[in-house]
Amino acid sequence: MALVVQKYGGTSVGSIEKIENVARKVARVKDAGNDIVVVLSAMSGETDRLINLAHSITPDPDERELDSLVSTGEQVTITLLAMALNKMGYRARSFLGFQIPIKTDSAFTKARIEDILDGKIRQELKRGTIIVVAGFQGIDAEGNITTLGRGGSDTSAVAVAAALKADVCEIYTDVDGVYTADPNICPDARRLDKIAYDEMLELARAGAKVLQARSVEMAKKHGVPVYVKSTFSDEGGTLVTKEDEEMEREVVAGVTQDKDQAKITIVKVPDKPGIAAKIFAPLAENNIVVDMIIQNASVEGNTDMTFTVSRKGIKQARQIVENIAKEIGAKEVVVNENVAKISIVGVGMVSHSGVAAKMFSTLYKENINILMISTSEIKVSCVIESKYTELAVIALHEAFELGKRD
Amino acid sequence: MALVVQKYGGTSVGSIEKIENVARKVARVKDAGNDIVVVLSAMSGETDRLINLAHSITPDPDERELDSLVSTGEQVTITLLAMALNKMGYRARSFLGFQIPIKTDSAFTKARIEDILDGKIRQELKRGTIIVVAGFQGIDAEGNITTLGRGGSDTSAVAVAAALKADVCEIYTDVDGVYTADPNICPDARRLDKIAYDEMLELARAGAKVLQARSVEMAKKHGVPVYVKSTFSDEGGTLVTKEDEEMEREVVAGVTQDKDQAKITIVKVPDKPGIAAKIFAPLAENNIVVDMIIQNASVEGNTDMTFTVSRKGIKQARQIVENIAKEIGAKEVVVNENVAKISIVGVGMVSHSGVAAKMFSTLYKENINILMISTSEIKVSCVIESKYTELAVIALHEAFELGKRD
Repeated sequence: MALVVQKYGGTSVGSIEKIENVARKVARVKDAGNDIVVVLSAMSGETDRLINLAHSITPDPDERELDSLVSTGEQVTITLLAMALNKMGYRARSFLGFQIPIKTDSAFTKARIEDILDGKIRQELKRGTIIVVAGFQGIDAEGNITTLGRGGSDTSAVAVAAALKADVCEIYTDVDGVYTADPNICPDARRLDKIAYDEMLELARAGAKVLQARSVEMAKKHGVPVYVKSTFSDEGGTLVTKEDEEMEREVVAGVTQDKDQAKITIVKVPDKPGIAAKIFAPLAENNIVVDMIIQNASVEGNTDMTFTVSRKGIKQARQIVENIAKEIGAKEVVVNENVAKISIVGVGMVSHSGVAAKMFSTLYKENINILMISTSEIKVSCVIESKYTELAVIALHEAFELGKRD
Repeated sequence: MALVVQKYGGTSVGSIEKIENVARKVARVKDAGNDIVVVLSAMSGETDRLINLAHSITPDPDERELDSLVSTGEQVTITLLAMALNKMGYRARSFLGFQIPIKTDSAFTKARIEDILDGKIRQELKRGTIIVVAGFQGIDAEGNITTLGRGGSDTSAVAVAAALKADVCEIYTDVDGVYTADPNICPDARRLDKIAYDEMLELARAGAKVLQARSVEMAKKHGVPVYVKSTFSDEGGTLVTKEDEEMEREVVAGVTQDKDQAKITIVKVPDKPGIAAKIFAPLAENNIVVDMIIQNASVEGNTDMTFTVSRKGIKQARQIVENIAKEIGAKEVVVNENVAKISIVGVGMVSHSGVAAKMFSTLYKENINILMISTSEIKVSCVIESKYTELAVIALHEAFELGKRD
């Protein structure tokens, strides 16, 4: 007998029929003699519908109110799943963030889980109850409803699994695992049976959408084994877990792309101490996440500062940066929205030299110009013109021999 | 400066435009220097939509889950109204049942409010905040979400007004007050400027839909003045308040009808002690509300027992009653679904004789057969064939001279 946490995403609970399908999958786990806690997202499209309602009132809705509004999406799916399970003869109960409680900080729309009290869940599990928990939401110290940001239900599931010391956390979605590249771009992409936490983390940060990065961080911290599976098939799956020797033999685990990128260059910045802080503090204050930063060598007391931000926030970022540029006496601000980030990730890189060089030469052979480079121990990222995105992914996937094997 | 509680019903918040209209009305009260607490229903149709979702899974959904599901309707409207007020420059905050908290018993789908803690509201009012409270919902001692039954938002509003000792509780709806009869039936119907709590209570119980009966009970108990007004017009309104001399001069305040009635007769019941309990206990256990009950005089040790129930629950009621009839050795069960209840209500009846007689003779003149009669100090109700409903209302309205005056 195991304690299993399962999370189902929006496409898995997108209709009454799909919710009934999830109920049958959950029942099978229970029938096999396991304890089970299910974490759900809202029906696909529902969160966007609610946000649009808010935006039809104001482009900038109060975030406390917005969180309370969008959290209703999960309230609908969890109660419907509990009803479906009850109808099948199982004892099932839904729990909202405040009912468990899932305690978070007060950073509305992007709150962090601080603590999950497991008393109520354990008590119900002892009674044989199937627990259905609302993903994406929590409650702060003042009793306000908070949400965890896009994809936050993954984090809810892993956090619940960690709090309960569950044997496994299964993330059900519309793909059957983590691939060496996006199969929509690269038909030769191969599903990985296993991937290390750090690799998954870098892939998620580099644009892979299969898991929210924060959920992987949490899984790593608490050692929760995470299994990514398809709701609609019993085949396949990828286990996200601790590094092992097998993984280290592979140099690169996967290639990923992120088109939600824009590049900003501040030209001829006077090169004085404190200038970087002056530029990036106002961006941080406005919650604009800066990804890669490059500062050129100083020429005649001036330097160029280039960095990338999310393309969605480019309007606001441009305005802020233009104000700063004036203030610090820089020459001009140049924005390029037609860029993408291509990354290769693998724990094996640490012990293999020449990985970055091979990436650069592969792109060079395809006549793809590299605009920016950033590296970590287990990742190399290049910013390129976005029209080359698919070409770059396919070329790198082949160069590192990531494709299907016989 | 006053403390005003306003409640807006589903048709008043049925779209973004209507919510913005409510925001302007609320702002006017605030601008005039008052403190204000707003209680909202769900958008019109939303509660039914959610119930239909549940029923598409099972005809008999778990009531705890159902309450959590349908309570999302008010969560949507209160957050949207708070956003609209924030956008207009006011400080506004929404509060769910659990956030105040509004404490109820655990009778899911028909919970009763036990207590409302006013600390959080008072604290926010001191800061100049406009408070927006979810109607219809509360929380029980175990932290489960409960709902108060159809029309429960009226009760929420009156309960909040009572807890805060508000100066007035204004109920905004799609009609501009309480009428002497349903204006859709009786074009001559007249809006009442004032009505006594007891009259309103009898009217509500007798089928008038303008206020939930329980909200009137609560208003009477706590002496909360309730003003029924139209959201869409600044004219008119009816004040529900304590009896005064003016009211007592009027014999009848209004006529009302209730078509949600079905009549059940158990024929030839052996007339033994305890037989009534045997019949009605199982109905009560199944939450079937029995309205009028008539027991005929006993003939040869047998009696006929006739009573009315809601037409909606007739299937279940019939089944239960047929089982009982067999058990107690009654002859047969006869059900008539084509009946309606017509009532006249007025505090002046107490001191005027012949009111019931006048009602009976008026119906007789129109050849309307009376099937059952029930009276209270301030009300006379007759069950008649439902096809005569409109005719009876018009005739009684005229006979008691309730129409428009010059």
